[in-house]
Amino acid sequence: MQNQIKSLQNDKVKFLNQLKEKARVRRREKLFIIEGKREITLAIQGGYTITQLYYCSSIITYKEVSLLAKTYNNQIELFEITSEIYQKLAYRATTEGVLAVVVSKNTDINKLTLPSKNPLILVAEAPEKPGNIGALLRTADAAQLDAVLIANPKTDLYNPNIIRSSVGCLFTNTIATGSTVDIVNFLKKEQVNIYGAALQASVNYNTLDYTKPTAIVVGTEATGISDLFLENTTQNIIIPMNGVIDSMNVSVAAGILIFEAKRQRGFTN
Amino acid sequence: MQNQIKSLQNDKVKFLNQLKEKARVRRREKLFIIEGKREITLAIQGGYTITQLYYCSSIITYKEVSLLAKTYNNQIELFEITSEIYQKLAYRATTEGVLAVVVSKNTDINKLTLPSKNPLILVAEAPEKPGNIGALLRTADAAQLDAVLIANPKTDLYNPNIIRSSVGCLFTNTIATGSTVDIVNFLKKEQVNIYGAALQASVNYNTLDYTKPTAIVVGTEATGISDLFLENTTQNIIIPMNGVIDSMNVSVAAGILIFEAKRQRGFTN
Repeated sequence: MQNQIKSLQNDKVKFLNQLKEKARVRRREKLFIIEGKREITLAIQGGYTITQLYYCSSIITYKEVSLLAKTYNNQIELFEITSEIYQKLAYRATTEGVLAVVVSKNTDINKLTLPSKNPLILVAEAPEKPGNIGALLRTADAAQLDAVLIANPKTDLYNPNIIRSSVGCLFTNTIATGSTVDIVNFLKKEQVNIYGAALQASVNYNTLDYTKPTAIVVGTEATGISDLFLENTTQNIIIPMNGVIDSMNVSVAAGILIFEAKRQRGFTN
Repeated sequence: MQNQIKSLQNDKVKFLNQLKEKARVRRREKLFIIEGKREITLAIQGGYTITQLYYCSSIITYKEVSLLAKTYNNQIELFEITSEIYQKLAYRATTEGVLAVVVSKNTDINKLTLPSKNPLILVAEAPEKPGNIGALLRTADAAQLDAVLIANPKTDLYNPNIIRSSVGCLFTNTIATGSTVDIVNFLKKEQVNIYGAALQASVNYNTLDYTKPTAIVVGTEATGISDLFLENTTQNIIIPMNGVIDSMNVSVAAGILIFEAKRQRGFTN
């Protein structure tokens, strides 16, 4: 029982809390926290490196945590924590009694290799709301997109609210980030057609052929896609709207565009 | 200046705060609050009855508020409130200095007359999250659906979070509510085809013809559509998914289904 932590003042507990609360600390340490058996298993399957597990024995047994650790081939440090500490660190109302410290992936676009010669890619430029990013990642998982590229990211990808709202899809998708210039250059180098959701010089989204290498680009709800990106699109596309307000949620609009491409591709991977 | 309110303890201020905070009070009084010129104008255009306007003269002038009141043909009581009172009652960070007290509409499904002989309708059964309901209403506005029906509602429609996340689409849509039985009976009486998004006995959503009278039904993310509703669907439909997790946000899924119907209908109203 040497790895038992009982005090909220313990340095490890303080560090975990910083990882949970502060994007700056997550970036500096290249670490983040996830919670629950399901998420931890998905992260392991997604190739993430887990360094430590913290468990609360009044919620989950040592045996269960050991089994979870065994699904992973490398060494994991195991710590028992009290209910009080667990409640402080956990973000969910219904919890599973286990937290993991995980090494952030290097998501640099210049390190990305596409898994397909005929990719279907979603690009989100400057997305802000964690809930929208989570919803985009869920759609990307369901569509088994080849990659999700985040241009000019405004939010730390390992923000607990993104992890939570993605219901694990943060770990099942291939995600890369970079400046708008780097993302554009990558798509051009890979000879991917770039379709930007924009009002300017656009055609109805359903009139194009997405069976070739395709990137669908969505911008922010407030200002859309940047001029820099728009100068580099193959064609701009629009979802025809007939309403009074005509303002769709960005993750809904992305879903409609992605699944039109999926429909044209016969829903194959 | 007889209609000037300066105290947080004023009975009207206390009542406004209750309308803002308590669904029970909104239901009992058949009143709710909206905020900002744009939302108030949309509510007036949407046929809502406005009874009172409260404005904060350090943010908006009497002249502007009077002009807003004049867009409405009936009598509106006008009250000036202090910044302190306005800050307490407003929910937005960036505000426009004006609040309206509005009469709730009777949304009973049995009072609904469909505006079209060949309607396209969205049914959401037991939706819970205000953010999702707001996103559904935005999609419904963009698609100019004939109606949005909420079966077995779990959330007060005039909840401030729904108003906010719908960005005004609460006022531009035709919305009706009722028990699942009442909604099913309405659709049958109107001879509308009922397509339920469900795993059971379903076909790919893109294989059906939505150019006839169509209702698309979505349930909750946790449990889907109720058995009672499923027993009454014309056909169940599914969005084919290829991912690891295959769990899409409900408003994204509804958007994909609605816009497949719109695509088939040539995006006409």
